Amino acid sequence: MNIYDISQKAGVSIATVSRVLNNNKNVSERTRQKVLTVMEEEGYQPNAFARGLTLNTMKTVGLLCADSSDPYLGSAINYLEQGLRIHSYDSLLCCTGYEHSQKEKCLDMLLSRHVDALVLIGSNFIERTTRKNEYLFRAASQVPLILLNGLLKGENIYNSLCDDKEALFSATTRILKSGSKIPIFLYRADSFSGIRKKEGFLEGLESERLACSGGQVVMCSGSVKETQSLLLDLHKKLPFDAVLTSDDELAIGAVKFAKAAGLTVPDDLSIVGYNNSMLAICCDPELTSIDNRLEYLCNTSVSLLMNLLDGKSAPDKTMVSADIIIRDTTRKNF
Amino acid sequence: MNIYDISQKAGVSIATVSRVLNNNKNVSERTRQKVLTVMEEEGYQPNAFARGLTLNTMKTVGLLCADSSDPYLGSAINYLEQGLRIHSYDSLLCCTGYEHSQKEKCLDMLLSRHVDALVLIGSNFIERTTRKNEYLFRAASQVPLILLNGLLKGENIYNSLCDDKEALFSATTRILKSGSKIPIFLYRADSFSGIRKKEGFLEGLESERLACSGGQVVMCSGSVKETQSLLLDLHKKLPFDAVLTSDDELAIGAVKFAKAAGLTVPDDLSIVGYNNSMLAICCDPELTSIDNRLEYLCNTSVSLLMNLLDGKSAPDKTMVSADIIIRDTTRKNF
Repeated sequence: MNIYDISQKAGVSIATVSRVLNNNKNVSERTRQKVLTVMEEEGYQPNAFARGLTLNTMKTVGLLCADSSDPYLGSAINYLEQGLRIHSYDSLLCCTGYEHSQKEKCLDMLLSRHVDALVLIGSNFIERTTRKNEYLFRAASQVPLILLNGLLKGENIYNSLCDDKEALFSATTRILKSGSKIPIFLYRADSFSGIRKKEGFLEGLESERLACSGGQVVMCSGSVKETQSLLLDLHKKLPFDAVLTSDDELAIGAVKFAKAAGLTVPDDLSIVGYNNSMLAICCDPELTSIDNRLEYLCNTSVSLLMNLLDGKSAPDKTMVSADIIIRDTTRKNF
Repeated sequence: MNIYDISQKAGVSIATVSRVLNNNKNVSERTRQKVLTVMEEEGYQPNAFARGLTLNTMKTVGLLCADSSDPYLGSAINYLEQGLRIHSYDSLLCCTGYEHSQKEKCLDMLLSRHVDALVLIGSNFIERTTRKNEYLFRAASQVPLILLNGLLKGENIYNSLCDDKEALFSATTRILKSGSKIPIFLYRADSFSGIRKKEGFLEGLESERLACSGGQVVMCSGSVKETQSLLLDLHKKLPFDAVLTSDDELAIGAVKFAKAAGLTVPDDLSIVGYNNSMLAICCDPELTSIDNRLEYLCNTSVSLLMNLLDGKSAPDKTMVSADIIIRDTTRKNF
């Protein structure tokens, strides 16, 4: 069954069938319905290649993330793929890792596949120099670029993100008000969201008129075990009594540290995770964690994309406030 | 820069350029090199649509899984996508959920996109009736079908899996030998691998001349919290002293149950997880867990697929033995 057969059955020209396929307005509603009915009766599926050539769209969105085994990124992919599929868009996935050259390569590869849009998941796609971000501006000159949890200004670039800075600010002031004297902030890297979270932490200290001694912002890119031993070392020099983190895995490292150091959580040590991932309920005690509303952000991103692909306009920035899910690693008065 | 420009620069016909693009052997090595050099100099990327039309391949593999937010499935996607990309194959992803109709729909969608092969991740794609598996046989009549952690016999179907039955058999006999009297097996569903694991458990009991009282095989499809309360109820009727599970999340439910019931792990209760996922090191005590060698299976699947797509033959079944990673939820003599 091809386009010719459809035109025969429907008693219209091939050009008309093509117009229906291409959503061209130059077809009467009655004719359009007739053609669609025949297609449905015959179970006709337009050949993807032919469709691509005529429409210049493959109805495909490129999804990029560093590593889908990260529970946060894996969840985002799940929400996005399912949301896009409802709108008949397929997802071409690239797990880029964290190297800049690979990110760039993957982006080019997806563009060469004529994706209709790109969604970059995680703020690590934004580099710290404009020159290194050229690859993003170049991509955006071809298709809409959605940054999930990133913020970059530019033509055809759309940002959906959680207000990480505000979330850390709020968690920090609450930790201090609940009695903590020396909180530290533990994070992975000076990525866009890493920096925002750090700023929120520092401003939180400031608002409570607490100066940062300098050792209170700690970078740790390692595993749970490595986080644990880093904190054991640090605690000998700086007797911190609260740990705020940029992800739940780091917070679990802090829970393990507390146990190894003989500290009671939350009485001796308060801990706040980030992402409210499934890890948060795996440890003991369970983590108080900041929920950055991933599902909501993914759904919003899909809607935004559909607007753009329908030729409508969309805001270049959608920022939502986070939620704090209180469990057992913070004090009762937190 | 298009195929015509390349032919002009290289001083050959368009047909020759096309032959080089299509890997047609009817081109001298010298001419081939000349064309490739021009392409490289000009940064030429063949248009994906045109390439698809001439080669009838989009160099794309369809990946299907139920839910990429599952840490096991998310990891598999990461390994597979990166492995395929090394061989210049792109990955079209579908997160199908667990409904049969959605699985079928996704499979058809990917086929309509002319994927070169399909990889189905997780044994839940295999249904229990031949009639319901028709969708898999139908797909395999079009492209190679790889089942990662499944086993289905059929033309053009290739199975890469871990010997789950042997793994549970071994873990069960070891648990009994370490002193447990009443072990139970906790699993999600009678999927292909669920059944294999259950069989391993039951044969393990039998080999130690222990009859199964019937209440020792327990299905639980819920969350960590639901698992915990299910076990609290069960323990009142059946004072089990070991829990073997079909995944780490269930095992974490068992750890939480032990705490709520005032049982010491592993002295009062031994626990064995499955998948050796990152969850295994998040709880306290950390889980002894069966490692089903996911990375190895994914790499093997990619190699197998490349063989097939190169026209070579490949075994229809690759089964590997599991490993048991011993941590703190089993006794010293386990």
